Amino acid sequence: MAKITAVDLAKKQKEISVAEFFERNKHILGFGNPTRALVTTIKEAVDNGLDACEEVSLLPEIIVQISKGEDENECIIAIEDNGPGIVKEQIKHIFGRLLYGSRFHAIRQSRGQQGIGISAVVLYSQLTTGKHATVTSKSQEDFPAVIMELAIDTNKNRAEVLSKTLDHWDKPTGTRIEVPIQADYTRGRRYIYDYLRNTSIVNPHAKITFIEPDGSIHVFDRTSDVIPAKSEEIKPHPQGIELGTLIKIAKNSKARKLSSFLKTEFVSMGSRTTNLVCETAGLDQNMNPVKMSRDQILALHKAFQQVKIMAPPMNCLSPIGETLIRRSLKQETQEISPEFIITSSRPPTAYAGNPFQVEVGLVYGGNLSKDDQIKIMRFANRVPLLYQQGGCVITQAISNIDWRRYGLEQRSGKGIPNGPAIILVHVASTQIPFTSESKEAIADISEIENEIKLALRACARNVERHIRKKDRRKKTRDKFVLITRILPEIAKKSASMLEKPLPPLDPVITKIMDVIWIEDLIEYETVKGIPVQTTLLESDPLKNPQGLITKSTIVVANYKDKPQHFFLYALIPQDAIVGVASPEPVKKTDTYLKWKLEDIPPAQKIDITFELAGLQKGDFDENDLYVSQINPAYVIGADKWEGE
Amino acid sequence: MAKITAVDLAKKQKEISVAEFFERNKHILGFGNPTRALVTTIKEAVDNGLDACEEVSLLPEIIVQISKGEDENECIIAIEDNGPGIVKEQIKHIFGRLLYGSRFHAIRQSRGQQGIGISAVVLYSQLTTGKHATVTSKSQEDFPAVIMELAIDTNKNRAEVLSKTLDHWDKPTGTRIEVPIQADYTRGRRYIYDYLRNTSIVNPHAKITFIEPDGSIHVFDRTSDVIPAKSEEIKPHPQGIELGTLIKIAKNSKARKLSSFLKTEFVSMGSRTTNLVCETAGLDQNMNPVKMSRDQILALHKAFQQVKIMAPPMNCLSPIGETLIRRSLKQETQEISPEFIITSSRPPTAYAGNPFQVEVGLVYGGNLSKDDQIKIMRFANRVPLLYQQGGCVITQAISNIDWRRYGLEQRSGKGIPNGPAIILVHVASTQIPFTSESKEAIADISEIENEIKLALRACARNVERHIRKKDRRKKTRDKFVLITRILPEIAKKSASMLEKPLPPLDPVITKIMDVIWIEDLIEYETVKGIPVQTTLLESDPLKNPQGLITKSTIVVANYKDKPQHFFLYALIPQDAIVGVASPEPVKKTDTYLKWKLEDIPPAQKIDITFELAGLQKGDFDENDLYVSQINPAYVIGADKWEGE
Repeated sequence: MAKITAVDLAKKQKEISVAEFFERNKHILGFGNPTRALVTTIKEAVDNGLDACEEVSLLPEIIVQISKGEDENECIIAIEDNGPGIVKEQIKHIFGRLLYGSRFHAIRQSRGQQGIGISAVVLYSQLTTGKHATVTSKSQEDFPAVIMELAIDTNKNRAEVLSKTLDHWDKPTGTRIEVPIQADYTRGRRYIYDYLRNTSIVNPHAKITFIEPDGSIHVFDRTSDVIPAKSEEIKPHPQGIELGTLIKIAKNSKARKLSSFLKTEFVSMGSRTTNLVCETAGLDQNMNPVKMSRDQILALHKAFQQVKIMAPPMNCLSPIGETLIRRSLKQETQEISPEFIITSSRPPTAYAGNPFQVEVGLVYGGNLSKDDQIKIMRFANRVPLLYQQGGCVITQAISNIDWRRYGLEQRSGKGIPNGPAIILVHVASTQIPFTSESKEAIADISEIENEIKLALRACARNVERHIRKKDRRKKTRDKFVLITRILPEIAKKSASMLEKPLPPLDPVITKIMDVIWIEDLIEYETVKGIPVQTTLLESDPLKNPQGLITKSTIVVANYKDKPQHFFLYALIPQDAIVGVASPEPVKKTDTYLKWKLEDIPPAQKIDITFELAGLQKGDFDENDLYVSQINPAYVIGADKWEGE
Repeated sequence: MAKITAVDLAKKQKEISVAEFFERNKHILGFGNPTRALVTTIKEAVDNGLDACEEVSLLPEIIVQISKGEDENECIIAIEDNGPGIVKEQIKHIFGRLLYGSRFHAIRQSRGQQGIGISAVVLYSQLTTGKHATVTSKSQEDFPAVIMELAIDTNKNRAEVLSKTLDHWDKPTGTRIEVPIQADYTRGRRYIYDYLRNTSIVNPHAKITFIEPDGSIHVFDRTSDVIPAKSEEIKPHPQGIELGTLIKIAKNSKARKLSSFLKTEFVSMGSRTTNLVCETAGLDQNMNPVKMSRDQILALHKAFQQVKIMAPPMNCLSPIGETLIRRSLKQETQEISPEFIITSSRPPTAYAGNPFQVEVGLVYGGNLSKDDQIKIMRFANRVPLLYQQGGCVITQAISNIDWRRYGLEQRSGKGIPNGPAIILVHVASTQIPFTSESKEAIADISEIENEIKLALRACARNVERHIRKKDRRKKTRDKFVLITRILPEIAKKSASMLEKPLPPLDPVITKIMDVIWIEDLIEYETVKGIPVQTTLLESDPLKNPQGLITKSTIVVANYKDKPQHFFLYALIPQDAIVGVASPEPVKKTDTYLKWKLEDIPPAQKIDITFELAGLQKGDFDENDLYVSQINPAYVIGADKWEGE
């Protein structure tokens, strides 16, 4: 055999087109097997539809239809949205080319960010069936829709347009993609349903219709007509920017002065900060940024880390919010009647200059199995994550918390705990660092892991507090029952023995109890004239609460032997609108109501009521009560107020 | 605010260069944090060096040097190999362009397959330090080396050559890359060491020198001068090929007849199979493959699945082998003195047409902690995998086996078990389906998971057998000790009391024992004139065994009351060369020796010895013995022979 040399090897060196790369590595895109491919196809198209509608502030109406294909391994997937449509020149690029899109270069929260997802669907379709995708798009109300049949030339990563026609479409505007793919519907159905249901819950402004191959229709109806505030695009933040990126921005900037370069290319750079940065870096504000030497850029980069720069504005993020997280968890535990649901939300922060925010929720108790691993629900930018749980930073953060003290079992304080709990974690970011292009798991970025841990620990502390409060209330109640049952008996007996009249018992009871007892009750009322809508999806009792009023009644009983006066605080959930409150609170904020309770005589009760609108049944099912200007040790049913 | 339309959105649609994509998503490539980036950089360059040397059948000599950079967060990494070098026209493409390489299109086992790794290192270097990579390459012995300074234009995914010079280099041929990167050496050191050590163990033909920033040198010396058989490139196998790929191959084929198309473009397609496939598909062998209709290709695709086609040749794979797996596990458990090491290897098979093979090893007992999770060692194509254990099919396969019956603890029979064990799994394939471009974890392809499970179960059964055998041997030994200690005492006493001579005890002992007792001993001898080499790496006692002879002595004692004759089998490890064996075996194969043992009288022993060369100390430290033509229930120390 002749010796092989570098020249021989050079002949084999070749460019690899990105389409070819992913055709070979389709599992990286989430198409590893026919079940997963089905879910990924639907996920990519639905996420795109939601993004498109939100981009133009339309209430999304998504139709997902699955039909049988040519043989048993083939499904035809059609997904339709009522978004703005796509201008015809762009259709072939968006659907027929990997790494092409509008959201990659924009710094703001959106579902799709890579410019890979939907063209990967087209690629997978042609790879597994040898057939093509059909895209219908209408971008102007009074014009016909464009219908295009597309393939991808994988050697070039470019679309081939196989046919192009015009036709009438009833929709004002919208986009529809139809692709035949190799898929396993029998196994995939459950995942699709889970994905659509969870998507619907955290996107209550979207209506999603799911039509199965047998013709059965599930409508996940919208439960809110409010489009969530659109996340705003921002410029990059100076802190956390990589040196190489800074060099690139400087090289391509149109600014001719360093000061204007800093102000126009970055967020959070006002005049004061700009001055300070230039001074710290030892650079002239008037110098031409394009002409900065490597050392000067290095100095600027260092100054970015040294100077205190305001955090980036957080309207680039769109968190799910406490109420929707509770609602997701309620839905997940419908038949379980859990003991309680606790949510916790961290303030926005950033990793490597990318703003992000973590929200978590925790369900505990009820009929949840005590022996199984806890269930984990993961969301990223309002999209449910279904696969690769083991490789996700969310799972890692949960595994690295010692849950044993919170009543869960966990061997040596590491790993996914066992016990009756469900944990939901949502990460919102302008750039979710997914572990791969399939967007199924979040990479283990330490800043993100830490925020998840902080949120979970806050939740866990609340679990502990909750259990403690419950225990204390139970003990006191037992005591109370005992006293009110036995004391009258003893009194009666003693009185009859001594032939004296029955003494008044209230002072004795209050003396023995020596507490303020607070109890609450939540009721739901339908307001006349605004009927609760019926829904096609009968299995979902949480839907369509328009016209529902949540009524909270708090009873404060004084079982102490002196009149009591103190302040009472009731927390108000996010998204709730406060209606009538009686007596009138002395203070109302977005997050709580405060009452001044004056001189409740011993053995007397007072009732406090307030009404909340804008919630669904169950969104608010327990008051979170606090007191001040009284020793909280004497109060059962409320904790010490730490606010203000 | 004016209504946003499709036209507005179209303006934002843009192409994303693959370099820009990975610059933003560097964590996908394994550069998520400064520790990991350091390990990934070294891994990519070392793997490339090993691949290059093997490609031209050279014994690899790799030098890894890390020096301090400009500031504390910067390291300068230099990696040098003695491979064939790279012709100068190719240097800029290989190092300065993502998705470019020689191994992507070749179907055979190699470490690098994506054409991304080494250019990603250059990308990361410029992103984090703003500096450039320097590549030195010499591809012809009598010419100077080319030295090139490179950057990547990320907007275009093309290299910028910043400088190009020629210089003398002592090496006959080779390649060297030097890159400054942002890295955390303090944290990363341990991982680098682990990676290099494990790489050295499963690549015993490589010499790896590691020079630390403080100047200390570790040499992982080669322990074998034999270059592993080069994995051969094959054509795709018809089974498992995707329809879309088949269409593409047909379209681009130069064959003008269907029969020659099938024979030239695919492996395992002889004339008989080709005839059968054409017949089954109902296609004329003489038709032009380029002119096949979609339906005809579909028929061909179906025929591929219906006709029995020979498996692809497996010389495209290069497994680690039993001996090296044992050696890795020995090294890992040096200070632990485990009870036993068991290996198991599956025959090669294929997923989606890609040949692959699974090998596993298991260490049990010794000082390994009983409370911790078992340790998992993962390898893919002879490369150790260090990160993303949770997201890897290897972990998933281990978690989905019920280990409780094998003496490990595992809550509800799922998850990573706890107990005193280490499991090593190696997956070799022409295409490892990594979950992402960072090549840290293998995707959950069901065929791969199943093979891993089968191999692990075989191992686990051996563990069970081993424990059982040990128990039985111990019980019998206790009995033996008891008899040989007490019986003479009783005999002496009785004899003196009765004033009679001491009776012969052997017949009594054999009657009570009623077993064949087999014991073995392994010794190591250094052959004169071939000294054991000394090594720089003194912490590694397993290295450099040239000239070592492993000598096995088996003692068979007949403690039954009749003469015994039967066959004895001793398994021979892979890679061992059998020397003198006495008595002469009646049969010698690659995997075992067989002796005919004739008429061993009661209470008599016979010695069997054999010598093995080509092994290191400890590679073979316990015989695996079997017997036939005797009731195995009477034999202690050997099992029933199930072979032949």
